Amino acid sequence: MPQLKAKSLEMRTPQATKTAVLVIGGAEDKVHGREILRTFVSRSGASNAYITIIPSASREPSIIGGRYIRIFEEMGAQKVEILDIREREQCEDPYIQASLEACSGVFLTGGDQLRLCGVLADTPAMDIIRQRVRSGQLTLAGTSAGAAVMGHHMIAGGGSGESPNRSLVDMATGLGFIPEVIVDQHFHNRNRMVRLMSAIASHPDRLGIGIDEDTCAMFERDGWLQVLGKGSVTVVDPTEVTHTNEPHVGATDPLNLHNLRLHLLSHGDRYHLYQRTVLPAVYRISS
Amino acid sequence: MPQLKAKSLEMRTPQATKTAVLVIGGAEDKVHGREILRTFVSRSGASNAYITIIPSASREPSIIGGRYIRIFEEMGAQKVEILDIREREQCEDPYIQASLEACSGVFLTGGDQLRLCGVLADTPAMDIIRQRVRSGQLTLAGTSAGAAVMGHHMIAGGGSGESPNRSLVDMATGLGFIPEVIVDQHFHNRNRMVRLMSAIASHPDRLGIGIDEDTCAMFERDGWLQVLGKGSVTVVDPTEVTHTNEPHVGATDPLNLHNLRLHLLSHGDRYHLYQRTVLPAVYRISS
Repeated sequence: MPQLKAKSLEMRTPQATKTAVLVIGGAEDKVHGREILRTFVSRSGASNAYITIIPSASREPSIIGGRYIRIFEEMGAQKVEILDIREREQCEDPYIQASLEACSGVFLTGGDQLRLCGVLADTPAMDIIRQRVRSGQLTLAGTSAGAAVMGHHMIAGGGSGESPNRSLVDMATGLGFIPEVIVDQHFHNRNRMVRLMSAIASHPDRLGIGIDEDTCAMFERDGWLQVLGKGSVTVVDPTEVTHTNEPHVGATDPLNLHNLRLHLLSHGDRYHLYQRTVLPAVYRISS
Repeated sequence: MPQLKAKSLEMRTPQATKTAVLVIGGAEDKVHGREILRTFVSRSGASNAYITIIPSASREPSIIGGRYIRIFEEMGAQKVEILDIREREQCEDPYIQASLEACSGVFLTGGDQLRLCGVLADTPAMDIIRQRVRSGQLTLAGTSAGAAVMGHHMIAGGGSGESPNRSLVDMATGLGFIPEVIVDQHFHNRNRMVRLMSAIASHPDRLGIGIDEDTCAMFERDGWLQVLGKGSVTVVDPTEVTHTNEPHVGATDPLNLHNLRLHLLSHGDRYHLYQRTVLPAVYRISS
């Protein structure tokens, strides 16, 4: 049966692949089952996949890019290349643009999310990725810093170990692939619940998504996200909040947030971004 | 005006004092405004207060007890004494029982909550405190370990920095003054959100109350709790939870909890233990 399944994946053309956006909490398994990275390759077209790796967040782009090249090649992708974009000007390079127009999967590595946004935001390369993701031609994955940039608002840094307050988190503008969400990564591993709640208090029109290490929130184009991997995806939903202190009060004053809704999701659980409904793994409709 | 208020407090007799249970997250201000400790003395009868300090949680009961004696005396309490209970047998001592029958306030210090429960649980001394608190004759306060023991189920220890799971928290039996709650203290200061959620997942008939340092959840006899101090009180309410994984699954598997309700409360906010309603400080009815 597993062989049959693998074969049917191989026979799919990239056009028939169901694209998705994989938001990975960092430190994903690169050695053993590699479920998350395997799913990325599969959603990029499996043996027909043409994957580009953008390591711009990293200060060691060749090393980190090289590691992912080997992994994706081992998994049977047809073509894998690094787009070593270090300067904004490179985003106008016709070769890079042609690669982004032709590929079936883009992988954003970890590193520094501010650096990644600084290089990519508002560039022709970025426009190509966004437009092709939106129209279902391209599967996108980002891990760690590559996950942080997914929302319109981005967490650039922050603290832990104190009472929630608005000054606890530093916000910036992300790449906006999924503008509705504010992503936080290495989530429970680095005790980031408080900074995500603080971010959501200042942006109550967004949804907080905290993703643990070796865990992925995979967003489908129909609005469902599904959890893959070994940890939790935490959803912080401020829709029903009845009271919060105003942003103009002291930024270090403790935060009020009354009637926050919170979901701890794990492998196989689904959550609908627009309906705000949650579906346990046991009721999963196979796709 | 402040003088008038102080005077009216002084004129109250202990009988007229509105008793309460003050659950303090540890490290309460002992030097400056001392709002929480001052409220404890006021609720114990102000200048008519007769306060007993139970330092049984601590390995240095004389030092910690001595510090609180000086503070409560400075605040004008009529009588303050340490009940230096180190062994269960002392809980049958007629002198200790007489003190507990006569006093208007009991203060449980920090230290080790297992030690405190080991000494006090199921003793005649404990029965006196519980019965007098219940009938509104006695104000009770506990800080840190003294706060942890308030519920029927007690958090004895636990971890942080990993995905929520049932093995992350060690539970024991508390002293049960407020059986409905599971208290966690030094809450955001020590990143304890995950262990409280894990505790609540295993006891979904209880309410999680996480209390930050220098912060107090003051429980009135009518079911309202009010927040005092400088940090947050976090309420984790599982009433509406639609799904959680069963306790019999692997204890280290990541926890599912769908539709948890969460409140971040701060100074002046109120929450009703039975109605599960929240009242922002701005709508506070003066008492």
